[in-house]
Formats: sequence, structure tokens, C-alpha cells
Amino acid sequence: MTTLPPEPEPAPAPPPSAYQRVIAAYDRIVEVDRPDVWITLRPVEDTLVDAKAVDERLRAGADLPLAGTLVAVADAIDVAGATSVSRLTAAGAVVIGKTNCDRFGSDLEHTRSPYGAVSAALNTDRVSGSASSGAAVAVALGLVDLAVGTDTAGAGRVPASLNGIVGLKPTLGLVPKTGAAPCGGIAVFARSLTLGQRALGLMTGPDGIDPLSRDWPPDVRLSAGDRPRVAIPGSDTLTGLSLQSRSAFLGAVSALRASGARVETVEVSALLTVGGLIHDDGFTADRVRVAEAGMLALRMLSEYDALVLPTVADHPSVAEALSDPDGVAKRLERFTAFVNLLDLAAVTVPSSPSDLGPYGVSVVVRPFDDQVAIDLAAVLTDEQADFPYPAPGADLVVFGAHLRGQPLNGSLVAAGARFTGLVRTGEGYRMLLLPTDPPQPGVVPVSATGEHTMLSGERWRLSPAALGAFAATLPAPFVLGRIRLEHGETPLAVLCDQAAAATATELTRYQCWRAYLRFVSTAGPRDLGRPA
Amino acid sequence: MTTLPPEPEPAPAPPPSAYQRVIAAYDRIVEVDRPDVWITLRPVEDTLVDAKAVDERLRAGADLPLAGTLVAVADAIDVAGATSVSRLTAAGAVVIGKTNCDRFGSDLEHTRSPYGAVSAALNTDRVSGSASSGAAVAVALGLVDLAVGTDTAGAGRVPASLNGIVGLKPTLGLVPKTGAAPCGGIAVFARSLTLGQRALGLMTGPDGIDPLSRDWPPDVRLSAGDRPRVAIPGSDTLTGLSLQSRSAFLGAVSALRASGARVETVEVSALLTVGGLIHDDGFTADRVRVAEAGMLALRMLSEYDALVLPTVADHPSVAEALSDPDGVAKRLERFTAFVNLLDLAAVTVPSSPSDLGPYGVSVVVRPFDDQVAIDLAAVLTDEQADFPYPAPGADLVVFGAHLRGQPLNGSLVAAGARFTGLVRTGEGYRMLLLPTDPPQPGVVPVSATGEHTMLSGERWRLSPAALGAFAATLPAPFVLGRIRLEHGETPLAVLCDQAAAATATELTRYQCWRAYLRFVSTAGPRDLGRPA
Repeated sequence: MTTLPPEPEPAPAPPPSAYQRVIAAYDRIVEVDRPDVWITLRPVEDTLVDAKAVDERLRAGADLPLAGTLVAVADAIDVAGATSVSRLTAAGAVVIGKTNCDRFGSDLEHTRSPYGAVSAALNTDRVSGSASSGAAVAVALGLVDLAVGTDTAGAGRVPASLNGIVGLKPTLGLVPKTGAAPCGGIAVFARSLTLGQRALGLMTGPDGIDPLSRDWPPDVRLSAGDRPRVAIPGSDTLTGLSLQSRSAFLGAVSALRASGARVETVEVSALLTVGGLIHDDGFTADRVRVAEAGMLALRMLSEYDALVLPTVADHPSVAEALSDPDGVAKRLERFTAFVNLLDLAAVTVPSSPSDLGPYGVSVVVRPFDDQVAIDLAAVLTDEQADFPYPAPGADLVVFGAHLRGQPLNGSLVAAGARFTGLVRTGEGYRMLLLPTDPPQPGVVPVSATGEHTMLSGERWRLSPAALGAFAATLPAPFVLGRIRLEHGETPLAVLCDQAAAATATELTRYQCWRAYLRFVSTAGPRDLGRPA
Repeated sequence: MTTLPPEPEPAPAPPPSAYQRVIAAYDRIVEVDRPDVWITLRPVEDTLVDAKAVDERLRAGADLPLAGTLVAVADAIDVAGATSVSRLTAAGAVVIGKTNCDRFGSDLEHTRSPYGAVSAALNTDRVSGSASSGAAVAVALGLVDLAVGTDTAGAGRVPASLNGIVGLKPTLGLVPKTGAAPCGGIAVFARSLTLGQRALGLMTGPDGIDPLSRDWPPDVRLSAGDRPRVAIPGSDTLTGLSLQSRSAFLGAVSALRASGARVETVEVSALLTVGGLIHDDGFTADRVRVAEAGMLALRMLSEYDALVLPTVADHPSVAEALSDPDGVAKRLERFTAFVNLLDLAAVTVPSSPSDLGPYGVSVVVRPFDDQVAIDLAAVLTDEQADFPYPAPGADLVVFGAHLRGQPLNGSLVAAGARFTGLVRTGEGYRMLLLPTDPPQPGVVPVSATGEHTMLSGERWRLSPAALGAFAATLPAPFVLGRIRLEHGETPLAVLCDQAAAATATELTRYQCWRAYLRFVSTAGPRDLGRPA
């Protein structure tokens, strides 16, 4: 009798298809029984047609980064005509319905919904936020993965905060407003920062229709760096906060400090006053005040990488909102309304350092510093920002003093460069010790025979302006040229003029500048360049 | 008797000192007898003190690019506190007085002057323009070299046009408004474009006081290039023009076409309508109209390097202005008022193709494209734009397909790069024929012995973003590295990886890619690389 071969390992379950995800979502919608969220829930048969089409495109080999991602769209946005939505569905997302918009406290772009008010996701006695509240609640209850809303005074951030999810309000114009009702800009809700950014990254770029849509400029900061400077409001600003909001905010500040951020207190009262003017009648004097306060605020913020604030001071009840809608609106918008007026960008994420539960904290940045906001917010959600925004740039491989922790690394970080990983070259490179200050390796391709190897370095991503400024100050004998990596890619790298390398000490066998530095620190400088 | 040595050549007369120039200016002021120009003419003794100080600084070796340049300042600017003025005097300019400001047709920032109206420089029956008219007349009459004024609806351009001089209205914020009455921005008047730009270049950059002042961005276009695309209005817009204005405008269009510009007719009525709103009361609807029309206009202009327009339709008489001041104001501002509302920049220069005399033509460009406007205006004044604005950038030396007229030159021009001259390297370089498409020379420093020479190339100036984009697409075997020029400078250059050069054909003895190309075109391709 022959021995049976061992039972094969069961294959890992494939991810659910778009079809399966739609079925599950509609089941959950019935289960949670929150009809206040929806204005139009598409018939399941219609949604399944879209889901099947996504599954078929996937099988046919299409690259669909959002395959089967379920999306709700706020009523202020026309699904059929919105560039923002069509870019999501082109990437494989499936829209399941339109959500209710009731101001219940914020944003004048919508009047009270004839479909009734939307309560908070987990506490139906409390308001859910503002114009895009149905969208936020749909995400918070797990009915969809992602929702698209609008944000003028805070409608993309306040409901996120009050429902314990992530809200992203990108720089105005990055996402075309085509198909949206008059508003500041488009916002995205998601349960994870990573998914929200991934979706938003696919939504950016002019569409040739919205005249206010704009492209990434050539000098975008691609990273918050290791030691970002963060401004926070002083304790006088925090006195009106609920215990939960205060605790969440202070917890966020601690987390940022622990991650290496340099946190400093600034005066934010002028900013908050500007925000208070958002619904005023727009007489010249106010416009001038906004313009002047805006310039002063931008000048203050220019010293910092970001301003971190509570998103909302407290969570008003439905009863309060019904008896004093305007007062509650002002309360909810206090920390958010200035952002669009001053052309800033913001991300709100749930911060939950205590058992009081999560509460929104906002990271506010200068226009186009959206990636800086994401990097800081990722500290608070404990995520990796894996899908950087598609701002223009180029990769640069470095081998020596520009490596992380080395003397010239600060110039890359200050230029907004983003570390994107370790790399190894193909065979055929030499590393030499140059008599520079600080000491640096010179990397050269091998022209003929001789010692050579695969070298280890770091890959950084730079905006065009940062790369140009880097090139403009690159001293001899360094040059910028293509390098061949082990898997065949040929990014730019800091290489060395071969003539200068001719007389330098060979370090090739170390394969890596760090390995050489370790050797030096152990063996002492007289052994420079003489590996054991 | 010995022969006398030949008489020595008389030394060229030294340029007049600041002291001499002040004396001559005050003589001329008496001679022209136009007290309507001045509100405060400084006592000559005071001005001579400043002039002597300049002469002394010059003798002490100071670098004073505006040494002895005489300046008038419009009454709307406080000489003592204005950043714009102090930057001129720091460069050696001498202020001789403050000029009269009478609206007489334009710009609400000033009411009618208690000092009386200013007539045009050469025709006292005609208006001189607007708020900065005294400043323009002082330049036009040769009383000063340069004048500093303001420009909101056209006060820096209309008087220039009506007095036959140059008016520069830079991108808002480039010159700090510190010390100026509320206005759109600072403007400069001069008799030559070169002097005007030179002065303006010294006035740009934030001063830490004016919160609206801004720096050059990293992607400034540094040149209009060889074949700029120029938009002009259609003939319907020209029907209301005086014969003189029409003739000047059409002459300018011909001159631009002759210089290589690609001129196309566009619809400008929306722009002119926006301009008409400049003095309206600022209700929301109008602001929305301005914002929307502005975006559409910018989108239209984004297809062009510049928009060329008449500066004023005709030259109203003093009598007309007295009987219908508002009507005359609107007439004068028709082609200028939209510019600041839409954050554009403009230069007006006298165009005089016929014996009707000079008349202003405006070159309007997108924000920060100030150098593009200068380059196009220089075609009309037949000047060389010798003092490019100090926008950030780096020099790049090219040797092959990026040379003017060669296949890849277009990529430099499209990036806004500026050709700044021919250069020659020091000894020690080789030029090799690379098997690239298009064929290109590889320039390498000589590592040891062997054939080498001084090579000829071109120097271009690129903005940081343009240089970064160039580097990001530079294919192997090219590298960016420092090259040593014959006089010791070491700018960046497009060089070649030496490993790739090892097997290439030697072209070093041609010293110049163009010389090699000439040889090939004469000798035929089979002789490639084999110079006689």
C-alpha cells in the first residue's frame, strides 16, 4: 500500500469579488436599518450589473486599484456627471447610492433636507455633522468603504470627526468640482487613511471642464520628513472643548511628539475669526479682513509644516441643533471654517488615546502640502502612507552623505524629498573613497575589467524643483546620471566623475557606505579603505 | 632734432557723475517750466548731498548698478518708508522729488489733486493719464530717468502710453507695496525698457513687511523663446481706436510677426468686461463673475505666451476729461483694468511704425511670466533685454542636440530656458560621437593623457523646475556634472559617462559640434568622425 501524498495546503481564500461585496453590503444595509442615511439606494440588481462588470474587467487583466470598493456619494454631487466619481468607477469602484444631506449644524450650501435629519453613526441622539453627514455615517456604519462629499466650511471633516472616521479635504482644485453643487471643494470619507488617500490620488488632476481645477505644481513637498515642525493652539483655545475632544487632541499631540515632530504653540485666534466670516455677506471690509488675516496666517504657517487642531469642540445633541441651528453650526465650524477661505488643505483622523473613544483631530497644511498632512495624520492612525499623491517628481538614488542619518540628508528632507526604500544596483559598479568634506563615496560604473560589485543605496523621490535645486548645487566630482538597479530599472543617481575616481581608495568590497562607516568606527581611521 | 612722439589719443570722457547729473536735471526742470508735474521738488542742495554720497560710494568701489540714475516718485508713495524706493537708492539712484497725482481719467485710489491737473508731456491740451501721470510726464520730458508709481486699473501703463514712454507693471507682489497708498501694485516708468527692467529687477523680492509680497516661484519662464505664441484681439475690438493707436497696434503686430512670433486672433470681450467691474461695489455676484471670467481668461491665455493689446484707444482732451471725468476714465482703462483683477502682468511700450508718432502697446502675460513680456516688448522697442529678472535658476552648458537650431533645442525652449551666450571650456576635454538618436556628442574630461582641447558650447539658464525636469528625462549615457570654462567658472553641463565614451569615435579636433556637422554635410556621412 502506497503512502498517500501529504494533503496540499488549502489555497488562501481569494479576496471577495465585487459581486460578493455588493451582496454583503446590501445585507448589512438591511441589518443596520438606518434609512435616514440614504436618499437613493440603488436597486441591488443595478449595482450587481456594475459589480459584475468590474469582476470581468479584473479577469481580463485590467489594473483596477479600487476593484470592488463600495462608494456612497453625497446628494450634492451628480453621480452621472461628476469627474470625481467617474475617476473612482474607472478604477473599479462601485457606487451603491446617494446619501442624505442635512445641514444640521454646518455649511450653507444645503438647506435642511426634505428627507429628514441624519443622526450620528453610533449615537442617534447626536448630530452627524453637516452637509455630507449621510456619506460619513454610511462609511462609519460599514455600509460602504468610501464616500464622496463636499467641504466648504467643514462638511468633509466635521462629520468624519463626529462619526469616528477619516475625512480628507485636499487642496482646492486638485479634484475637479465638475458635477458638484456650488461648494468649496470635494472631500472623501474612509475608515482608513490609506484607502482615503489612495482614492483621492486617483481623483486629482484637471479635467478640462472645471476652470478652477488645477494641477500639482512643480515644487510639491512629497514628505513631512523625520522632524516636522508642528504648530498647535495654546491652552486658551482648548478651554471650550469637551473632555473627549480635549483628550483626543492632547493624545494626538503626544503621539506626534513621540514620533519626532517638533511641536510649538501658536496664536490661532485670528484664524478662527476669519473662519467666522464664512457666512457673512461679503462686503468689502470683510473681504479685506479675510485677505489680510489670510496673508498673516500663511506667513505664520510658513514657519511650520502643519497646524494641528481639534476638528470639533464637542458633539452637539439633535435637540440642541433643533433649538439653535445657527449657534450649533458656528460651534461645529469653529476649527474648520478658515481652511478653505485661506486656500489650505486638511485631513481629519480619529484620535483615541483614552477610553473616551475616538474623536477627530485635524492636520492643516499649506496648499499642495497634502502629502505632509497625510504623513502626519498617519502617525495618529498608525498607518503607513503607502500611496503618495501623484505629484510630479523623479527618483534619485544616493549612496553616501545623503543617506538617512548622514550629514547631507537634511538637504534632501528640507527640499521635501520622500524616502521610498532601499535599492541595490546590478553588478558592475565600484565605490571609491573621495577626499570630500564630509567624506563621501564615489560610485562609478566599471568601464572595463577590475573589481566591481552590487552596491546598496537609498531611493528618494524629489519634485522637479527640488531635483533642479539639488542638481544646481551638486559639487564636482559628483554627477547625476542613470544607474542600473538589480531588477533592470535605471533611475537617476548621484555618481562620480571617473577621472576623479581614478586615484581614490577602493571601497567596492564593502558594497555599502554604511558598512564601510561601521568598519571605520571599529577599526579606526588609519585603516581607512583597507577592509579585512 | 628728434621726432615728437605721436599725440596720445584723448581719453574718452568719463560718464557724468551723479553730482553733474543732478545739476543738469535741475537746469532742465527750470527750462521746461512745468510746475504741474511736481508736488515736491527737493531743494537742489539736498539732492546734491545724496548725489555726492553716491559718487563717493562709487569711488570707494561700491557696486551701484543705478549710480546717478535720477528718480521721481509719485505722491501715492512715501519716499522715506517705501521698500521699492529704498532698493533703488541702495543701488545708487537719487530721488529728486515727488510728482503730482491727478486722476484725470483713471484709478480711484486718488481723488483729484489739490495741486491741479497734469497735462500730457508734449500736448498740454491732452490728459496725461491717471494717478501716476506726473511721474510719467517727468520721465517723458527728460527731467528724470526713472519714476516709481502705482498701478491698479492702469495708472502705470496709461500715462506711459499717452506720454510716449515705457511702463512696467510687474506681477502683483513681486515688488513690495510697503510705503504705498492702497493700490494694486507698484509700477515703473522709464524711457528705455532696459533701464526700466534693470530698476524693477532690483526692486523685486519680499521685504518681510508687505504680507502680499511674494517671491519668484521655482518654475519661472526665463525667456519668450524664438517662436512665441501671441494672442491679439480681433478687428471688432479695434474699431473704436484712434488712427494713431490703431496704427501703432498694427505696426506692433507686424513687428512681432517679423521677429518670429506666431500671432493669432482671440476673443477678448470677456476680459474687457471684467475690467469694467473694477470700480463696482463688490457685491457677491460681481466677484463671482470676476472669478469665473478670470479663470476662463487664464485658460484661454494658457494657450499663448502673451496677449498683445492697444494700451489706450485714444487720447482724450483735457476739456473732455473736465466735462465727463467718469466717461473718460472708463475710456482710458478699457484695455488695462482687467490685468490686476486677474493677477496678470503687463508692459506697455511706445510703438511708432508711422509718422503719427509713438503710441502705447501692451504685452500682457500670466503671473510671473514678466520676462516673457519683456522679451516681446523688446522686439517693439528694438532693445536687447540685457538684465533678466533675478528669478531662481541655474546655468547649463550644452554641446550637441540641445544647441540652438538642433533637434532637441525645443525642449529647452519649451521649459522656458534662456539662451545666455556662447562659451568655451578650458583645456582638457574630449568630444566623441555617440550612437544616439539623434546623433549627439559625448563630452568627457580627459582622465589621463590623450587628445583633448577646448570645446565650444552654449550656455542656457533654466529655472529649478525646468532643470529638474531636464535631469529627470536625461537618458544614459549622458550625465549632469560640472564643467570648467576657459575663465575658470564651473557651471553644470551635459556630459557623458566615460565608460560609454570609451568605444566612441573621436571628434575632439572639431572643437565644436556645429563644426563637425558642417564637415559631415560637406564630406558626406561615410567620413563620419574622420576630419581632414
